[in-house]
Amino acid sequence: MSVASIHKPVQQELEQVEQAISEVTRSEIPEVQRMLEMVLSASGKRLRPTIALLAGRFGEHRPHHLVPLAASIELLHTATLVHDDVIDDSDTRRGQPTVNSRYHNASSVMLGDYMFAHAADLICRTESIDVVKLFTRTLLAMAGGELTQDMTAYEYGQDTMQYFHRIAGKTASLFATSAEGGAKVAGASEEWTKALHDYGENLGMTFQIVDDILDFEGDETELGKPTGSDLMSGTLTLPSLLLMERHPDDNPVKKLFADKQNGKELLAQAILMIQDTSILEESHAVARDFRDRAIAALEQLPDTANRASLAEIADHVIQRRS
Amino acid sequence: MSVASIHKPVQQELEQVEQAISEVTRSEIPEVQRMLEMVLSASGKRLRPTIALLAGRFGEHRPHHLVPLAASIELLHTATLVHDDVIDDSDTRRGQPTVNSRYHNASSVMLGDYMFAHAADLICRTESIDVVKLFTRTLLAMAGGELTQDMTAYEYGQDTMQYFHRIAGKTASLFATSAEGGAKVAGASEEWTKALHDYGENLGMTFQIVDDILDFEGDETELGKPTGSDLMSGTLTLPSLLLMERHPDDNPVKKLFADKQNGKELLAQAILMIQDTSILEESHAVARDFRDRAIAALEQLPDTANRASLAEIADHVIQRRS
Repeated sequence: MSVASIHKPVQQELEQVEQAISEVTRSEIPEVQRMLEMVLSASGKRLRPTIALLAGRFGEHRPHHLVPLAASIELLHTATLVHDDVIDDSDTRRGQPTVNSRYHNASSVMLGDYMFAHAADLICRTESIDVVKLFTRTLLAMAGGELTQDMTAYEYGQDTMQYFHRIAGKTASLFATSAEGGAKVAGASEEWTKALHDYGENLGMTFQIVDDILDFEGDETELGKPTGSDLMSGTLTLPSLLLMERHPDDNPVKKLFADKQNGKELLAQAILMIQDTSILEESHAVARDFRDRAIAALEQLPDTANRASLAEIADHVIQRRS
Repeated sequence: MSVASIHKPVQQELEQVEQAISEVTRSEIPEVQRMLEMVLSASGKRLRPTIALLAGRFGEHRPHHLVPLAASIELLHTATLVHDDVIDDSDTRRGQPTVNSRYHNASSVMLGDYMFAHAADLICRTESIDVVKLFTRTLLAMAGGELTQDMTAYEYGQDTMQYFHRIAGKTASLFATSAEGGAKVAGASEEWTKALHDYGENLGMTFQIVDDILDFEGDETELGKPTGSDLMSGTLTLPSLLLMERHPDDNPVKKLFADKQNGKELLAQAILMIQDTSILEESHAVARDFRDRAIAALEQLPDTANRASLAEIADHVIQRRS
């Protein structure tokens, strides 16, 4: 499933989303304009707005409110990436230089805030306090997830349940809001709204787990970041947690967290052990399980081409290599 | 006019605002809780929530929606301070250590985002999309003002009009929203709503101009930051702009922006010239002019004790020494 074919059913509206994003982020200050272009050109697959646009077809199709919703979600997502790059002190993202590496941290903080403000402005254009509430609940979940991740960095002794909770906030929440927001804009029934929420949430879990697997098995050039970068920055993800479960008493993660001085060597050991065992396959099975739940949620919806497209997105997410 | 007597007419609701803020910012993570306490204990005079609570009495008094509005505004204000301290790389604020100095920049970015999210959540509790729109318009104005200030730092050749425009976004916007938001929650007439907006906006301008004057004439210990710190970080405020107007061809600000190496000496010269001439008095006159406009706007409102309290706040703002 290519990205182009995922976009196809909503291609026209997706172009309106791009239009809306580039309009609101146009700045009078050339420097700000350049930073915004830098951030937005390095953009990804527009999965979240596509999901919102598809979900907004289960009920009354209202493009006038749906396009601002989808644009708001993508802008919020991009704003969080800008702040994440400051938080992680990243020099590159998807192989491109980050704003904080090219400019400075202060600019990135302000740029992210500016994009958040625009995302908030766009969400208000749905004219629905319910949709705005959904948006703010996601803000809370994402900000809380980020804080938790940072505050528990290098903390040994976390388990997979804490991991699931953390990525539910950090990632799945925005996917859930993309789908549920679309349903709400369309005035879908409660049953359909819940089904779309569940689809989005489980898809988001799948997405993040695949992301965390790719951090260990992905190609550095394709990913644009070094293998094992999460572990190196003290973040435990599913593969590391499974390794720790298998070797509770003695494993390189435990040593790495206790002795950051010899980080590189211990990290290399951890990566080798994870790649060498069935841990990545087991992680994939967990991701597939969430994907299956996403697909199962769709079964509450009428069997339309739009439903099929949402299912295809789930397949794309589980198969992606970058 | 002491701060205590300003609070008096809305004291009880102000305590509910404090309660609402401390409830929403309570965190399960002890470290986050400590950072929040650090930020909130170093808090100021609660001018903005007090204005919102007073404005919310011109119409139908609805504490259930008014308290979340006031809490949201104060939380948004505090969140911007947290990010400002990262942007300005400040070690202290109001004489207290900042979060970014005690923890690190990443924590401050996340903490600010987390507080923004809570502010957004609180504003939704007004159940009014109109009030939420007001809030997002302010977000845009504040974020835009900050970006403009940063991007034009050390740019010689700005004028007072650009300065007024910048502080209107950065500061006056939130004061305007405090007053206008209160009016909207109370369902005040259009005329009263506009009067309260104008009051808030002009009061905000007064507030910032006084702030910028204090940066030159204030007591370092009381302010908790060195004299002339704005100029040192390349920000032109009213006193510097007036100095430049009087000596367009040759002045220490021009030299300072061209030669940051000898910053300290040139800054001392600029401070002396500003303190020595009638520039600070002229700046005060401009501030008083905005204060007068704020008071004039109040005349559109019925002559009540609440109106008198709003006028007293304006007097406090112009007289404050820290």
